[in-house]
Amino acid sequence: MKRVFNFSAGPSVLPLPVLEKAAAEMCDANGSGQSVMEMSHRSKDYKPVIEKTESLLRELMDIPSNYKVLFLQGGASLQFSMVPLNIACCGSAGGKKAVYIDTGVWADKAAKEAAKFTEVDVRASSKDRSYTYIPDIPPGDEPAACAGDAYYHITLNNTIVGTKWTQLPDTPVPLVSDISSCILSEPLDVSRFGILYAGAQKNLGPAGVTVVIIREDLIGHAPPETPAMLRYDIHAEEGSMYNTPPCYSIYMVGLVLEWLKNLGGIPAITRLNHQKADMFYQYLDNSELFYSPVEKPFRSLMNIPFLATAGDPDKLKELETRFVKEAAAAGFVNLAGHRLVGGMRASIYNAMPVEGVQALIQFMQKFEKGAV
Amino acid sequence: MKRVFNFSAGPSVLPLPVLEKAAAEMCDANGSGQSVMEMSHRSKDYKPVIEKTESLLRELMDIPSNYKVLFLQGGASLQFSMVPLNIACCGSAGGKKAVYIDTGVWADKAAKEAAKFTEVDVRASSKDRSYTYIPDIPPGDEPAACAGDAYYHITLNNTIVGTKWTQLPDTPVPLVSDISSCILSEPLDVSRFGILYAGAQKNLGPAGVTVVIIREDLIGHAPPETPAMLRYDIHAEEGSMYNTPPCYSIYMVGLVLEWLKNLGGIPAITRLNHQKADMFYQYLDNSELFYSPVEKPFRSLMNIPFLATAGDPDKLKELETRFVKEAAAAGFVNLAGHRLVGGMRASIYNAMPVEGVQALIQFMQKFEKGAV
Repeated sequence: MKRVFNFSAGPSVLPLPVLEKAAAEMCDANGSGQSVMEMSHRSKDYKPVIEKTESLLRELMDIPSNYKVLFLQGGASLQFSMVPLNIACCGSAGGKKAVYIDTGVWADKAAKEAAKFTEVDVRASSKDRSYTYIPDIPPGDEPAACAGDAYYHITLNNTIVGTKWTQLPDTPVPLVSDISSCILSEPLDVSRFGILYAGAQKNLGPAGVTVVIIREDLIGHAPPETPAMLRYDIHAEEGSMYNTPPCYSIYMVGLVLEWLKNLGGIPAITRLNHQKADMFYQYLDNSELFYSPVEKPFRSLMNIPFLATAGDPDKLKELETRFVKEAAAAGFVNLAGHRLVGGMRASIYNAMPVEGVQALIQFMQKFEKGAV
Repeated sequence: MKRVFNFSAGPSVLPLPVLEKAAAEMCDANGSGQSVMEMSHRSKDYKPVIEKTESLLRELMDIPSNYKVLFLQGGASLQFSMVPLNIACCGSAGGKKAVYIDTGVWADKAAKEAAKFTEVDVRASSKDRSYTYIPDIPPGDEPAACAGDAYYHITLNNTIVGTKWTQLPDTPVPLVSDISSCILSEPLDVSRFGILYAGAQKNLGPAGVTVVIIREDLIGHAPPETPAMLRYDIHAEEGSMYNTPPCYSIYMVGLVLEWLKNLGGIPAITRLNHQKADMFYQYLDNSELFYSPVEKPFRSLMNIPFLATAGDPDKLKELETRFVKEAAAAGFVNLAGHRLVGGMRASIYNAMPVEGVQALIQFMQKFEKGAV
């Protein structure tokens, strides 16, 4: 077996010990004589699996007790609908505006989806400079001014363009955030938020399960015509078992969380993530061939897009294509940038070892020597 | 490793060779140096996985070319909303009634959910005799009479009560069916249906992926305010990749379908399923302790509920509890009936070997000798 270094933005690299444990337990988990995949979700065999996953997440993120943790399906994209349907279209917040800050493709998608269900106010955007920064919180957003809004939505880390928020907006209305690509990558004060949501396929596990962390007072406001599967209250009341949850994916998330805890939790992974990102940005900032298009204060810890310098556009395209191809042949896969922005991108999630980033830099240095 | 015989109604037993293959490929699938869980859904590594799964399903079910196959999330429960939202709330079928036949808990849930979005006409029900039969198609349902309906919904196999439709309603409007608990268990003429849907966790693979088979002319009628993730047109246009699909669950479904094809496909599994069910019903019909509450013409091939005879109710409850407990200790797990109906139930999906049913019958014969 030869493992590659996988820089995919998601689904993405998982810790090898986690995969090895999953393989070992595939036909007989915990002496149950069954795979976790075969366990009835309401059985005594499965119950500890989902409970362990939730309790590890609560412990690692220090989730306050007045927040529910839900394991849902549909990815962050379904949350783009569920958030406004549950907390903006109802009695408690009826007629209020939902505030969105446009920091990239996914933030924009979230705002556009919400606009189907409620009035949306895109209060700031960084689209003017290709989303390479996080905009200032507009002056009108001091607490007194936005008390009438339904909620305030930000995308904490922007996977495609590689930016992240470094300072949270101070808003009196519930702060809601997509944290798909940065959950558990560094400290986060959950109590600052009303709702946090994350598709698992970046820092948590396989695609197919979405974690929602929601403050209890925000549950129970969906209008009656909301589809049952899109109601937080139903999922919360049923402990994520209104219908059959994505049991195996939840189990895998549990294994990843266990691995993270054994590693030393958030303090340890934060150190490692900074070590990896610092190393890579430093290389880019000193390279004669590659550079980061992102403004320094807003650079993501998880997703690092980079571009190459070359004479004419045709040459650039040819160089990028050759880089991605040669990197893949050398065992560094999924380095092409998102299809909407082009260029290259290295996603260095929690499970990417320091050695992977070191080896990539070495490869890039060698490539650079041949190219410039 | 000692495997149990798992009679769970879902998630449920999977073929051991499938689990073994998944375990072997867990850290390095097809020499890619990655787990299938780690593959970017848009990568050249993953593309063949989803394509193979779809093509095997098309081949095994003989799906006509004017039907799309979608791999979605949210289980059959999300389809309870998606069906009416997509084909009853819109221009093409606006103002029409959706017809539901009430044959059990899930059929009833589907109808109640649809009633949020459109007018629902529950045209027949078998609730009067605890859902132990499939009702006759009401006389008013001859083709001319129901031409004005939006669609006609049936639950082809009723998991909880153990009944199945043996003759399809002859309706000029799209016939829609939940086939979660009987997909690929015996021949089915897909061309008779407008939409078929199935949660994977019974006959197809792990929980977390839902297969939808939809005739192309039924795609594209959702009103604009429909949540994006609930629109068939978006999923169809994007080849089930509007957002990240449940990649690993789709891979597992592919392995199960490969196993089924190697076994001889639908003809072979139909023979095996009849062999298992016939054997079990014959035992129940001749037992002095256990019996099937379901009327003979409507007995399910997949889910076999059974009850025990005993003097007073207290004794009965004690006997059932003891049976389920002793069976589990002997390696026959998940034999308790659904929490809503009680009693016992053996779900004998495709992956349950004939030996499992034979061994269960032997255990029940022994238990019976001790009890009567």
